[in-house]
Amino acid sequence: MNDLEARIAWSGLVEPGDPVAGALVESLGPVDALDLVARTARADAVLLPGLTTVAHGRVRRGLEGWAQRWGADTWRRHRDWIEALSGRVVVPGDPGWPAGLDDLGLARPMCLWVRGADPAPLLARAVSVVGSRAATSYGEHVTAELCAGLADADACVVSGGAFGIDAMAHRAALTADGGTVAVLAGGLDRPYPAANARLLSAVAEKGALLAEVPPGTAPTRHRFLLRNRLIAALGQVTVVVEAARRSGALSTAGHATALMRPVGAVPGPVTSAASSGCHHLLRDGAVCLTSAADVLELLDGTPADSGIAEPLLGARERIVLDALPVRQGTAPEGLTRPCGLALPEVLAALGTLELSGRAVRSAGRWRRA
Amino acid sequence: MNDLEARIAWSGLVEPGDPVAGALVESLGPVDALDLVARTARADAVLLPGLTTVAHGRVRRGLEGWAQRWGADTWRRHRDWIEALSGRVVVPGDPGWPAGLDDLGLARPMCLWVRGADPAPLLARAVSVVGSRAATSYGEHVTAELCAGLADADACVVSGGAFGIDAMAHRAALTADGGTVAVLAGGLDRPYPAANARLLSAVAEKGALLAEVPPGTAPTRHRFLLRNRLIAALGQVTVVVEAARRSGALSTAGHATALMRPVGAVPGPVTSAASSGCHHLLRDGAVCLTSAADVLELLDGTPADSGIAEPLLGARERIVLDALPVRQGTAPEGLTRPCGLALPEVLAALGTLELSGRAVRSAGRWRRA
Repeated sequence: MNDLEARIAWSGLVEPGDPVAGALVESLGPVDALDLVARTARADAVLLPGLTTVAHGRVRRGLEGWAQRWGADTWRRHRDWIEALSGRVVVPGDPGWPAGLDDLGLARPMCLWVRGADPAPLLARAVSVVGSRAATSYGEHVTAELCAGLADADACVVSGGAFGIDAMAHRAALTADGGTVAVLAGGLDRPYPAANARLLSAVAEKGALLAEVPPGTAPTRHRFLLRNRLIAALGQVTVVVEAARRSGALSTAGHATALMRPVGAVPGPVTSAASSGCHHLLRDGAVCLTSAADVLELLDGTPADSGIAEPLLGARERIVLDALPVRQGTAPEGLTRPCGLALPEVLAALGTLELSGRAVRSAGRWRRA
Repeated sequence: MNDLEARIAWSGLVEPGDPVAGALVESLGPVDALDLVARTARADAVLLPGLTTVAHGRVRRGLEGWAQRWGADTWRRHRDWIEALSGRVVVPGDPGWPAGLDDLGLARPMCLWVRGADPAPLLARAVSVVGSRAATSYGEHVTAELCAGLADADACVVSGGAFGIDAMAHRAALTADGGTVAVLAGGLDRPYPAANARLLSAVAEKGALLAEVPPGTAPTRHRFLLRNRLIAALGQVTVVVEAARRSGALSTAGHATALMRPVGAVPGPVTSAASSGCHHLLRDGAVCLTSAADVLELLDGTPADSGIAEPLLGARERIVLDALPVRQGTAPEGLTRPCGLALPEVLAALGTLELSGRAVRSAGRWRRA
């Protein structure tokens, strides 16, 4: 048995993100770690030297749980199954393995079950776009605009394949011939929700469909929550378009924050419950996003369109900018009164505004750029 | 002539916020400073000892400008006029003078022309609520809700008496029997816009109508921009409900920031140009406001309703909170897998959640509060 095969077996034994299994596999390697499970299943003696009492107990309990699911040939069945789906398995170290997952540490998936393109190149520049299943037409409209803009800028759209925002995100990326990746909570043999099966097939065909659990695994509530950590880890930025206060999208945002990934939220009407989770994120420090340009700014770290140097403008610069005529220029002296500022302050502000491209000078007179 | 009379005269001579006049009045007192204007008007010799060359030139130019408007009895005409309007004048040092204006330094108004109640007690707890004249029905609805909530919490609503958000802010405060103050850019003899005359009369009757310029003064563009600094200084918090990218409400927000007052913005649909200025403010660090409770939190410094301890929750706490059952409790060990966390981490998170009142423990089992 090699590492790939052992990781396939591990992914069928553990619940997603199990840190005890993660620690065991990281320290012994997948093959030797799996051997402990097999020996536990056979009731062979298993020695766990060098562990504290607490760790020893947790590993022991883990081994006993995994041993109950252990079957020497189960992994082969899973591998044949994914091959029958024209899919494959990618493991850490493979060129197709997305580096972002390594930030999950011990909660890193054992392997990725893949249908479609190699994840790593697709995800080199990726934004996770998530939101409510119960999206409003406003939320779907904004999602479509955002994701079309991301596709145009060659950024891959990562989402969860669910109804509402997720589905619109994939659809908009596909329509704009962009890359898109759907991460499922269950096995790839059962696209969930079933009503999105055709959409998910299209994602597999033009992008990639990913799962960390083998074919045949049911998508349960806690697998959904843990699937969210993969969505957060696969995008360099996470965007929440619409989310109620209890939306799973907020768990994705929480994972992204824990992973030190920037989180952005799209505002909406304060009268809309579907935006209340986004407003909560905004109060909590998420970046307010209103366009694909704003998302790309977060992704690439360069300021978007007209917002260029505005964050650099102080109150003084703003007051002078407000008072600055659009057409005919004015002498700086003409700005002191309307601005309530002394001439040196006006001159300093004009200098800053000129540097940021918002004011232009011509023959000693100033106007807006 | 006493200080009150001299300040009345000054308010008719200078443009709002003139820092040179402010410096002269602060250093010599209003009476002696005014004497310099009268002497300049009579072409008497005026000595300005102890000034640098630059300051000397600015004061000299100031005096020449003011001297052209100087009339020994003009102030009396203005005073009689405000009395005919059943109004009066409040100056720094009067009990009615709102302390917030002193933060404007040399740009502090010379005096306040008042119709209605004494400003200071009315403004002891005040929120400035501003926004677009071209408000949408969404913006007006949110303004009405916010201002009714502020009135219920005994907070005064300060605004500019304009169409749209301003008018709705005053109207909602009046309807809820709350305090409200309108700050006009022109003289109090000409409520502007004229179509709001009846509303502004009601504000004068139940709250207060303020201006820094004497009756008879026209509201010009730059007087509007400078009037905004008064709105920003009179509220302890400034709230922008709806604003396009060029809205005067953004100048009010800029003044509030310069005065170190907290600024909040109400989000709206990103598809609405009337909210784009608010979103810009949010990207710039304004607080996202969705309800009167959020505004009161900003005003009083205590967290609003359900947001109570959430800003304190880290990513770990959120993940555990997400996984925590609502009905039947679970043992902490049952949370390690769904959360992808080790037991000590789960226990630490549960402790924090319990402290913040979001999780409850019963017989060793945990559930959401």
